[in-house]
Amino acid sequence: MKRVLVTGASGFIGRHALAALAARGYEVHAVARHTASGPAQWHEADLLDAAQASALLARVRPSHLLHFAWYAEHGKFWNAEENFAWVEASQRLLRTFVASGGRRFVGVGSCAEYDWTAGHCDEATTALVPSTLYGTCKDLFRRYLDACATHHGVEAAWGRVFHLFGPDEHPARLAASVIAALRRGEPAACTAGDQRRDFLHVADVAAAFAALVDSRVTGAVNVASGQPVTIRELVTQIADLMQRRELLRLGAIPTRAGDPPVLTAATARLNIEVGWRPAATLEARLRETILAAAG
Amino acid sequence: MKRVLVTGASGFIGRHALAALAARGYEVHAVARHTASGPAQWHEADLLDAAQASALLARVRPSHLLHFAWYAEHGKFWNAEENFAWVEASQRLLRTFVASGGRRFVGVGSCAEYDWTAGHCDEATTALVPSTLYGTCKDLFRRYLDACATHHGVEAAWGRVFHLFGPDEHPARLAASVIAALRRGEPAACTAGDQRRDFLHVADVAAAFAALVDSRVTGAVNVASGQPVTIRELVTQIADLMQRRELLRLGAIPTRAGDPPVLTAATARLNIEVGWRPAATLEARLRETILAAAG
Repeated sequence: MKRVLVTGASGFIGRHALAALAARGYEVHAVARHTASGPAQWHEADLLDAAQASALLARVRPSHLLHFAWYAEHGKFWNAEENFAWVEASQRLLRTFVASGGRRFVGVGSCAEYDWTAGHCDEATTALVPSTLYGTCKDLFRRYLDACATHHGVEAAWGRVFHLFGPDEHPARLAASVIAALRRGEPAACTAGDQRRDFLHVADVAAAFAALVDSRVTGAVNVASGQPVTIRELVTQIADLMQRRELLRLGAIPTRAGDPPVLTAATARLNIEVGWRPAATLEARLRETILAAAG
Repeated sequence: MKRVLVTGASGFIGRHALAALAARGYEVHAVARHTASGPAQWHEADLLDAAQASALLARVRPSHLLHFAWYAEHGKFWNAEENFAWVEASQRLLRTFVASGGRRFVGVGSCAEYDWTAGHCDEATTALVPSTLYGTCKDLFRRYLDACATHHGVEAAWGRVFHLFGPDEHPARLAASVIAALRRGEPAACTAGDQRRDFLHVADVAAAFAALVDSRVTGAVNVASGQPVTIRELVTQIADLMQRRELLRLGAIPTRAGDPPVLTAATARLNIEVGWRPAATLEARLRETILAAAG
């Protein structure tokens, strides 16, 4: 029996993972502080509370765990104190999962774990030198997960999320803010946009995680499209799809100091070992996102 | 006011740190599961219990914390499950210490954090590639400590203990077992003893930690004599001091596979930055240890 518990199941990525896991034959259990909609059996719990986490695991007894939950408040999470609490809550969750007979744990990491001066990030060779507390804490939990899984003979994988976009994205984030400005008929102020990034639609990120859960791959796996674009290309494509190119103000704001010129992902592990790659093009996914914003 | 809380205060090293800290002008608080003797105000608490740890910190409100407590059962600690619980307990202790106004935290690490193929271990350059779960978990907590201290503007140092000996050592450990055999007039079976190690008397280890607490040095510091000897030299010196050289059986047991031929410590940080080095010679300390065993 394949029974997966998805934490952070009402979150930006988590909500898209439920159907993808159900489609792969999992009995899907979703946990969030407040029940949301989605094809799963829902459980309310605050995973920062050890007793609630423990009671949840005893009730569900999942064979698989997909752990999206973390502190993720836009603009704050990079250096928030809450990262420490989430390291500890994640460790407890993992140990409780193992003790209750869990077999495979998939954690959600980030490109922020890598040395951002490296540019193109490869799981096997790029140094792990986080520049942010968020990256440091994700790296800390990944190390704990690796040691704990090895010790107990449990499988563990770790998906590192790169850049993403999609419906219900925080309005201050890149794609959402450009779409919103253009929809209002207002100028969209951007940097020159030379930064090269790997953008993946949030539903694809979630689908990649469902594939990772459903594989036997262990260790770190970059979750990205493998088809990097510059930010200029991305926002130009959005503007063209909205027929509002004249409102795009490339170079209107300075590039943030320390913003890496290249931050892209090697995706051989995801494409070949996990056997997943995005089915839709970036253009198709941007079109969907623009339509969803028009709501 | 300098008020230090010493955890693991009844342990092999911890018990020797109390007087050394008192001599440096600290108000010394000692915590252990069961009160022991020693120049300190004693507190009973199980630090694996979050509520007990929290109540203790609220009661003592130390400015300094010296954290010896860990799972240390001889022959078992290298790969014991308990290492995970101590990572978590140490993280909680640290966060509670910071929240209650603590200023300087000194953690107790191990040469087991280093890549043992490196031989001579230097804090700045030797890779951290632990071969044991104990080393992995100490390394995990050191990383957490580093991130948490940086985030909160608290000072943190990390002493890495190498090899040690002294009174009340576990009878199965090297110096203690050789002394015991020779005292009984029985042969002491040893390996050929070519392994080069840095041995330091446990009271010197504790004194070095007291000096580290009382310094402003941050980051990792090897705690060792800086005067390595071979195991053959060590046990021969013991046998000569006991006038029982004829009972020494060098080469009687095979060297354990994977036992590194050289595991020694760079001690410039300890000697120069912390300003501490052992006052007594190895011979004087061995003589004391033999006398204590006769006691």
